[in-house]
Amino acid sequence: MARVYNFSAGPSMLPEPVLRKAAEEMVDYRGTGMSVMEMSHRSKEYEDIIQTAEKLLRELMGIPDSYYVLFLQGGAHLQFDMVPLNLMTKNKKADFLITGHWAKKAASEAKKFGAVRIVASSEDKTFTYIPKVTKNMFDPQADYAHITTNNTIYGTRILPANLPDVGSVPLVADMSSNILSEHYDVSKFACIYAGAQKNIGPAGVTVVIIRKDLVGQCPASAPTMLDYKIHADNASLYNTPPCYAIYISKLVFEWLKDLGGVPAIQKINEEKARILYNYLDNSALFKGTVVKEDRSLMNIPFILPSEELNDKFIKEAKKLGFVQLKGHRTVGGMRASIYNAMPVDGVKKLVEFMKKFEMENKQQ
Amino acid sequence: MARVYNFSAGPSMLPEPVLRKAAEEMVDYRGTGMSVMEMSHRSKEYEDIIQTAEKLLRELMGIPDSYYVLFLQGGAHLQFDMVPLNLMTKNKKADFLITGHWAKKAASEAKKFGAVRIVASSEDKTFTYIPKVTKNMFDPQADYAHITTNNTIYGTRILPANLPDVGSVPLVADMSSNILSEHYDVSKFACIYAGAQKNIGPAGVTVVIIRKDLVGQCPASAPTMLDYKIHADNASLYNTPPCYAIYISKLVFEWLKDLGGVPAIQKINEEKARILYNYLDNSALFKGTVVKEDRSLMNIPFILPSEELNDKFIKEAKKLGFVQLKGHRTVGGMRASIYNAMPVDGVKKLVEFMKKFEMENKQQ
Repeated sequence: MARVYNFSAGPSMLPEPVLRKAAEEMVDYRGTGMSVMEMSHRSKEYEDIIQTAEKLLRELMGIPDSYYVLFLQGGAHLQFDMVPLNLMTKNKKADFLITGHWAKKAASEAKKFGAVRIVASSEDKTFTYIPKVTKNMFDPQADYAHITTNNTIYGTRILPANLPDVGSVPLVADMSSNILSEHYDVSKFACIYAGAQKNIGPAGVTVVIIRKDLVGQCPASAPTMLDYKIHADNASLYNTPPCYAIYISKLVFEWLKDLGGVPAIQKINEEKARILYNYLDNSALFKGTVVKEDRSLMNIPFILPSEELNDKFIKEAKKLGFVQLKGHRTVGGMRASIYNAMPVDGVKKLVEFMKKFEMENKQQ
Repeated sequence: MARVYNFSAGPSMLPEPVLRKAAEEMVDYRGTGMSVMEMSHRSKEYEDIIQTAEKLLRELMGIPDSYYVLFLQGGAHLQFDMVPLNLMTKNKKADFLITGHWAKKAASEAKKFGAVRIVASSEDKTFTYIPKVTKNMFDPQADYAHITTNNTIYGTRILPANLPDVGSVPLVADMSSNILSEHYDVSKFACIYAGAQKNIGPAGVTVVIIRKDLVGQCPASAPTMLDYKIHADNASLYNTPPCYAIYISKLVFEWLKDLGGVPAIQKINEEKARILYNYLDNSALFKGTVVKEDRSLMNIPFILPSEELNDKFIKEAKKLGFVQLKGHRTVGGMRASIYNAMPVDGVKKLVEFMKKFEMENKQQ
């Protein structure tokens, strides 16, 4: 079969040139006579891979030297523990902005380590918007304030221009589903974490970007593997890292750099989102589910007037090679996840099909 | 370059047919139009992969239905925490047999969760042997007894026939470096864990085999991700698993099954070890470092009479395509890690080269 347009929310599409290069280098990586999967993580060849991956990510995101970049395991889920374990250590309290399922999970897990305060939540309207917050709503004594920059399930995002002003409180962000999709000023954050499986690489590696002065507070009684310091001191090589997933991430970073970096992909992402939102705004049949000003560039949920039509649409779309369009059960309908690796053409063709579907089904 | 003989202690060689198949399926997995790396972990295609991996591992190791098989992240290192967190919960004490660096680390990490007692240690002789233990040396009140079945750095192993009799105390084993290499009776263990990067697949996935009745003791205050129960209840899909590493593991299991399973690979491994040990036992120049009765089938350390000769050997070997032969700094000399994927020919050719090297250097 030809390659499909894969709208999965994650794991999700990877750039085809990355996959082709990985296939090419699988059995013999650049004349080493071995696969990257077979390399000792202490070998010069592998050190070059992980160091290049870090260098490229620093370059792409403009990460200052005052931050560590760590490649860890366990996904955002393990960060829901590591963040409070390492940072909720002074006044033992933290503020959370609840904008979706994952923000809720992060907050609920943090309760194991200290006092969690909900600054604001949009759960009243099924997370279809980002609550407006002002500086005085945040506790200046909180060890940190936690946000989720993009809400995969609900399709909202906190725009780079709308980051909450939390004063001197460290701002922590789960950026799993929109890291590298548009420019966020890293220096505004104390810590950014992201599971790789949307915009970075394959599932199995987690990126943590953390201000160096915040590392070293983890209690000695905690599991060593959950202490940022051990990983920072060992440049992510304290234990055997997920070597191959980091290698693929490096290939993705190279692809992104060649493309023109974050400014270039941001333009492409804005173009893709514009095409789909424009159509949704003008369709008599399809409807977006999110308030306009908080719309995600990455995850676009939309619904049809009936469950029958939703099902029909998903089924017909699949036949044409538009796959994984089913929305999350809490939102229903459809969701098009259009991460960095989704080409503009994929969205254009999807919209063409949606128009055709609308024509064929408008009498209902 | 041609494929090399890679004697790395881990990550290490993978079967070449597995790599070729992975390369072939990289861009389009069996007509799905996508790579395994791009698949939703909730898709039917991926569920088939992870379920098949589990089924094959159960078959290969003869794992009874009364055990869970989990695919986790974080390597053996995270198991050093998860095991005590989940199992050291009744009398809050555990017994450890110290047979090497990793056994020591496991014990030292467990101290964070309860009382650790060292039953016996071979550190007095740089771990060149396995201490003899008897049932009365174990505490019948211990929550578990922990062993390391194969000691990667020192090249010793606890033979399947020599497993300690710990009575009704649950026996826990770190089997990272010799899982699937020869037959161990799983029913003798309460829990077996193994990082994948030696005999299973690429780094980034950890296999945990645990008796079902032992799951569910983790305190509610612990990080959710460290609770075996959450992973068991969700068939390793509580969070996004390291999908691609599990897929490669599945290919390795298929390769092993086609070969004839564990009995077949055990014969091959015994043959490889015999060739190398025989030569070491009869060489006037090379010397093994381990007592005969506790020798590993997987990691074979050996030394030459001087540092200069060690260096010379490693350098010349590398030129001929025998790579990663440098021993661990605590043992010195060389170490040939000859895991399942190392063909008999690799060992034969290495020994041929060792003979030639001995001839050329015996006058020194």
